[in-house]
Amino acid sequence: MFKASFYAGFLFVHITEYNSALMNGHEYGFTLEATDGHARAGRWQTAHGSFDTPVFAPVGTRATVKAVTPRQLKEIGASLVLANTYHLYLRPGDTLIRDVGGLHPFMGWDRPILTDSGGFQVWSLGKINEIDDEGVTFQSHLDGSRHRITPERSVEIQQNLGADIMMVFDELSDPDDYEYCQIAMERTHLWAARSLAAWNSHQQQALFGIVQGGIFDDLREESATTLVSMDFPGYAVGGLSVGESKEDMYRVLSTVTPLLPDDKPRYLMGVGTIEDLVAGISRGIDIFDCVLPTRLARHATALTSAGRLNIRNTSYSFDLDPLDKSCNCYTCSNFSRAYLRHLATTKEMLSATLLSIHNLYVLIQLAKQLRAAIIDGKFNAVASEVLDKLNRSQPAETLAS
Amino acid sequence: MFKASFYAGFLFVHITEYNSALMNGHEYGFTLEATDGHARAGRWQTAHGSFDTPVFAPVGTRATVKAVTPRQLKEIGASLVLANTYHLYLRPGDTLIRDVGGLHPFMGWDRPILTDSGGFQVWSLGKINEIDDEGVTFQSHLDGSRHRITPERSVEIQQNLGADIMMVFDELSDPDDYEYCQIAMERTHLWAARSLAAWNSHQQQALFGIVQGGIFDDLREESATTLVSMDFPGYAVGGLSVGESKEDMYRVLSTVTPLLPDDKPRYLMGVGTIEDLVAGISRGIDIFDCVLPTRLARHATALTSAGRLNIRNTSYSFDLDPLDKSCNCYTCSNFSRAYLRHLATTKEMLSATLLSIHNLYVLIQLAKQLRAAIIDGKFNAVASEVLDKLNRSQPAETLAS
Repeated sequence: MFKASFYAGFLFVHITEYNSALMNGHEYGFTLEATDGHARAGRWQTAHGSFDTPVFAPVGTRATVKAVTPRQLKEIGASLVLANTYHLYLRPGDTLIRDVGGLHPFMGWDRPILTDSGGFQVWSLGKINEIDDEGVTFQSHLDGSRHRITPERSVEIQQNLGADIMMVFDELSDPDDYEYCQIAMERTHLWAARSLAAWNSHQQQALFGIVQGGIFDDLREESATTLVSMDFPGYAVGGLSVGESKEDMYRVLSTVTPLLPDDKPRYLMGVGTIEDLVAGISRGIDIFDCVLPTRLARHATALTSAGRLNIRNTSYSFDLDPLDKSCNCYTCSNFSRAYLRHLATTKEMLSATLLSIHNLYVLIQLAKQLRAAIIDGKFNAVASEVLDKLNRSQPAETLAS
Repeated sequence: MFKASFYAGFLFVHITEYNSALMNGHEYGFTLEATDGHARAGRWQTAHGSFDTPVFAPVGTRATVKAVTPRQLKEIGASLVLANTYHLYLRPGDTLIRDVGGLHPFMGWDRPILTDSGGFQVWSLGKINEIDDEGVTFQSHLDGSRHRITPERSVEIQQNLGADIMMVFDELSDPDDYEYCQIAMERTHLWAARSLAAWNSHQQQALFGIVQGGIFDDLREESATTLVSMDFPGYAVGGLSVGESKEDMYRVLSTVTPLLPDDKPRYLMGVGTIEDLVAGISRGIDIFDCVLPTRLARHATALTSAGRLNIRNTSYSFDLDPLDKSCNCYTCSNFSRAYLRHLATTKEMLSATLLSIHNLYVLIQLAKQLRAAIIDGKFNAVASEVLDKLNRSQPAETLAS
């Protein structure tokens, strides 16, 4: 029982400490601290402490950021992690996690946690048998067992998980199929209203709406306007980074964010490359998450300020340089490319750990660097410098005009 | 080049710092600090700092202790790690490691390193084509390529790797085949003499002889006596924990260690259970290594003070206790059995990391605990307590009389 009692004490301390920050009886809330063009610097308060925005959240699909310990995550500077409702609902089950005190003590992470709604995974992983206005019946990708998730059930699962930020259950659609996008968007709006009604943990757990509408500006505008009228604590832009062009993604962001209220955070779901972070922040996005840095790490690929690097390449055999000379992460401070190549080619687990630490550090530090630039009123200069270093041929496409 | 220059600086500091500890022009040497019965507390000095004995050395086969970072190893209290000559000779190659500055900077480990000779792996992994008095020709277990290792080549490889403690190339044998044991032992003695002759890094790298002879007391006595006459800086007992009974192993230890000089360290190769550490220390062994704690970890098994625990067991689903309530490791301080079971059943890499940290901590701390007991003259009492907790039915078998 050591975890539960430790956790209870921890929670009490935070409730006391942040009492002054409660808003309308909530333990969460957003403060916009500075803007520079569309770019924003802010802070989101939760019952588990606050995090500064812009922020990049590592993904801990099954209540673990793959190959990285919570202590290492803190050393990297992670202030928010994401966990997947779909995966945790299937294993070990949301009621088990509830019964052991929630995700925070379960995974040993005492900072803020965001859970998605399961909508994306049902769409991308589950075998969908039936989708109707009530919800989705699907087969597990693990064992083929049948399950049903409704907006109410998704909220219940996320309340059981104990996330600081929960997402409404949404319907994804092929981003360039107008008719499908419209149907899915309208259903997402219905589900958003039902999620709000089912949400009974207002005090500690925030619930964010999700703007859908594919690559179509009129649908995106309708979706943003409709959701804003429902008055969520925060808003996500969903259904992007699912195969559409960069041009479409950036245009949709430029369409949506001006319609969202300034005093609420904006979260771009599933996005996590250096150029997309710059592009999103320049268009007013505050929160990002993506499996990319840890997935690339497991495939021996490092994100660097000069582009991607596959460490398996023979040219690194004798290379005593770190992955990125301008990086201060644990990996770059202690290990050479020659060693990392050896680990990757011999399929040692440490390879995934050290590359994950590096890749996450790159994105987390980039968000911090851009935050400082926003506060200093130098966002465009710093962002251009970052993009130039990446040797992008068309930086103008990435930066919002 | 940052590693090489960093390393050069580091080395210089150590050479200066430990100048007073040089023995006969060497940067290494053993100090016996206390004895309690046959049990010994000592310290081995190297060019990379010293380590206290008794000591348990984690195994980093391919220049990485699987799933654990060097920083985590230090947090666990590891003071010595072992790397395998056979594996590193095949990949990435000993000359590559020499050219990047040696194993210490290569793997980011600035404390002492011990390498085996490759003898055990040639015997257990390689397809042996030919063994003769000159050496062994074998096929790689990786790609079938043909290689030849002689005593001289093994010393050369280990000198290239830059280990603080090197082992002579030895021939293993089935422990209960007297004729084979005798032949292998005599060849091991010939090779030990040739290894001594080939060894030209006396100043920084120690070379240990290996006592062979299977389970036969007369062969073991002959082997110990012969090797002691060659005057090695330290002695290993090899060819144990390879299938013989505990009774045979403990009897051989009781036979061999009294024949070894008091002022040289004794290393029991490949042994690493709680009961075998107690048994070895009670018979005068100073150094242990074993893949067991990390291998068990990757198979979801924890070493605890009350025996082994397979964390996949359903009974741990809701268990909020740590692996071992009496353990202070990072894993036991932060994670429940319920979480570790979830990680193991979903095959998350963090499972191997957290269980490896725990299992290594258990053996490293046990060695430290028994060292303190030896210094306090309470070895038998503390050792009996450890064995009682393990619920062994025959503790008298383990403890030397």
